[in-house]
Amino acid sequence: MIWPEPLYHAHDIFRETPMTDPKKTDLKTKILSAVQGDLAAIETALTRHLAPHFELVSQVAGHILFAGGKRFRPLLTCLAARLCGLDDPKTAEFSIIFEYLHAASLLHDDVIDEADMRRGRPVAGKVWNNAIAVLTGDFLMSRALSIAMDTGIHRILKIIADVTNNMSQGEIQQLARKGDVTLTQAEYLEVIHYKTAVLFEGACHAGGLLAGADSSRCEALSTYGYHLGIAFQMADDLLDYTQDLATLGKRAGADLREGKMTLPLIHALSRASEKDRDQMVSLVGKPDFSDGEFSELVEKLYHYEGIAYTQAQTTRHADAAKTALSGFKDGPDRELLMLLVDYAHHRQS
Amino acid sequence: MIWPEPLYHAHDIFRETPMTDPKKTDLKTKILSAVQGDLAAIETALTRHLAPHFELVSQVAGHILFAGGKRFRPLLTCLAARLCGLDDPKTAEFSIIFEYLHAASLLHDDVIDEADMRRGRPVAGKVWNNAIAVLTGDFLMSRALSIAMDTGIHRILKIIADVTNNMSQGEIQQLARKGDVTLTQAEYLEVIHYKTAVLFEGACHAGGLLAGADSSRCEALSTYGYHLGIAFQMADDLLDYTQDLATLGKRAGADLREGKMTLPLIHALSRASEKDRDQMVSLVGKPDFSDGEFSELVEKLYHYEGIAYTQAQTTRHADAAKTALSGFKDGPDRELLMLLVDYAHHRQS
Repeated sequence: MIWPEPLYHAHDIFRETPMTDPKKTDLKTKILSAVQGDLAAIETALTRHLAPHFELVSQVAGHILFAGGKRFRPLLTCLAARLCGLDDPKTAEFSIIFEYLHAASLLHDDVIDEADMRRGRPVAGKVWNNAIAVLTGDFLMSRALSIAMDTGIHRILKIIADVTNNMSQGEIQQLARKGDVTLTQAEYLEVIHYKTAVLFEGACHAGGLLAGADSSRCEALSTYGYHLGIAFQMADDLLDYTQDLATLGKRAGADLREGKMTLPLIHALSRASEKDRDQMVSLVGKPDFSDGEFSELVEKLYHYEGIAYTQAQTTRHADAAKTALSGFKDGPDRELLMLLVDYAHHRQS
Repeated sequence: MIWPEPLYHAHDIFRETPMTDPKKTDLKTKILSAVQGDLAAIETALTRHLAPHFELVSQVAGHILFAGGKRFRPLLTCLAARLCGLDDPKTAEFSIIFEYLHAASLLHDDVIDEADMRRGRPVAGKVWNNAIAVLTGDFLMSRALSIAMDTGIHRILKIIADVTNNMSQGEIQQLARKGDVTLTQAEYLEVIHYKTAVLFEGACHAGGLLAGADSSRCEALSTYGYHLGIAFQMADDLLDYTQDLATLGKRAGADLREGKMTLPLIHALSRASEKDRDQMVSLVGKPDFSDGEFSELVEKLYHYEGIAYTQAQTTRHADAAKTALSGFKDGPDRELLMLLVDYAHHRQS
């Protein structure tokens, strides 16, 4: 049940598609075979923690949780804990905090974005309704909190508070600035830090805390998670302009259509001629631009180096993530955490 | 700024309207003058904790928080703490946890119910949009958690986890059973326990914990909160059939129109003749029943003692709330908690 369905959602790092490059296929196989045990333990924990609740709650939560998510965040917790010397089946049990928080935010996002499909299936708001989707998100958030309480580690609770606080604010800020072509790179970085990277950061930090690691190791893990999260989101934002439509089964240009300002566009706009700038700006938030208009815009993103610049920034953050782990002894868990960075990074192509 | 606006929402215990009876006006005046200091401290804390956040977040949160809410839940925390011997300005600071949780659930409820107005103002989802309303709800939930962390009391965090867990499940169950005329009294009780009473219970329990009260006192406070919450919700459900439309400025019959099964109807249906039952059932969830049809149904609720039975149950729970406080020494705080029960109870008439 671990890789059962085609994945259409950009939040999944192990998306099935751009893996035609044999080097990348190797990478995926290598990662998957190394983390099989963790993934199985995570699946068991996810199922077990839903069971005692109202049937409908379990159904709706299961709809989002068991639709091909790749457990990237709980996996980070498990690997970070093991890197700090903890090899305990309880880690997987606790790691699902971060999958629940992620699923909760996806449920709310789908209501917010008025999405129809996620991971190749209709979203919960369409199968049931928006009300059920909002409330199941709330329920999963409260489950995450309950499991965090079971760890008995106060600082993990603080992570949950900070993560939920920042994620909601990041999403609000993103919404508030939709279609705002004056968004700066610094503001973009703040948004993706809050909406995406804090959860990666928290998942890694929590792994260290579970293992009883000292504050310098916990900080190194947080730094790793931060840069990984930023690289992950930047690669995702790149894909929205560069992905192969036919293979991905998802229409490109979704961010542009929604008026979501991301780095490729922000950078290109800052360098474009007035005429080109006006032309690009005219498509931001336009619900019905043509394929031709989109292709022209993508060409401009290449021309004004919005793509190259974002790729370079992604590389910079991927490198910084790896550097953050330099203080840890070399070994299979550190190697896996490095491979996950490569995986996130390679999505850009 | 404490009682600035007309109140149309049934969740507000100090609604401005049915207070024509001089005895009840006395009750309100008496309560208000006794808790002035607490209310002022609560207002200050509510404002202060919003200030450091993104402007839009503060605006949306402020829209729901400063629209005439009567701070019933934080007041319970303050009074419960003082009843257990704690007289500390920090209590008001912490008590707002329960106002934030309440406001978060109202924000999500308004999205869920597709409401237009609350407390005489357009809901946040209409002033801004549903996405902002959902996310601000998430933000307030995370703020509640952060403040709970500041108490340093682990059991208060457990209360937050349990309250949010139960509230979301209660709301989901209520939604799932919308229009289901087979809902039993026991199931109704479970729903209103989860969606309403747990928050009252938690607010009272937390007051005891802040004061360092022993477990028997904390339990007595929880019991008080539970019965008060149930009485409060039952009185609210009664009002939906018995309130004076002209005075309240809110259309009666909203629950019936939404297919929300409440005790007056559940009890009457269980005793009605087949013909009357069919007629009543035909209006459940009907969006456009006439005033005449509604009046006829209300008559049947009286005839089959749905109203009288619910009034009796409300009295039973109001009495049980008072009894729960019998172990505490008599004094102004206990008296105030008793008066609050009367207040909730009198809403039924």
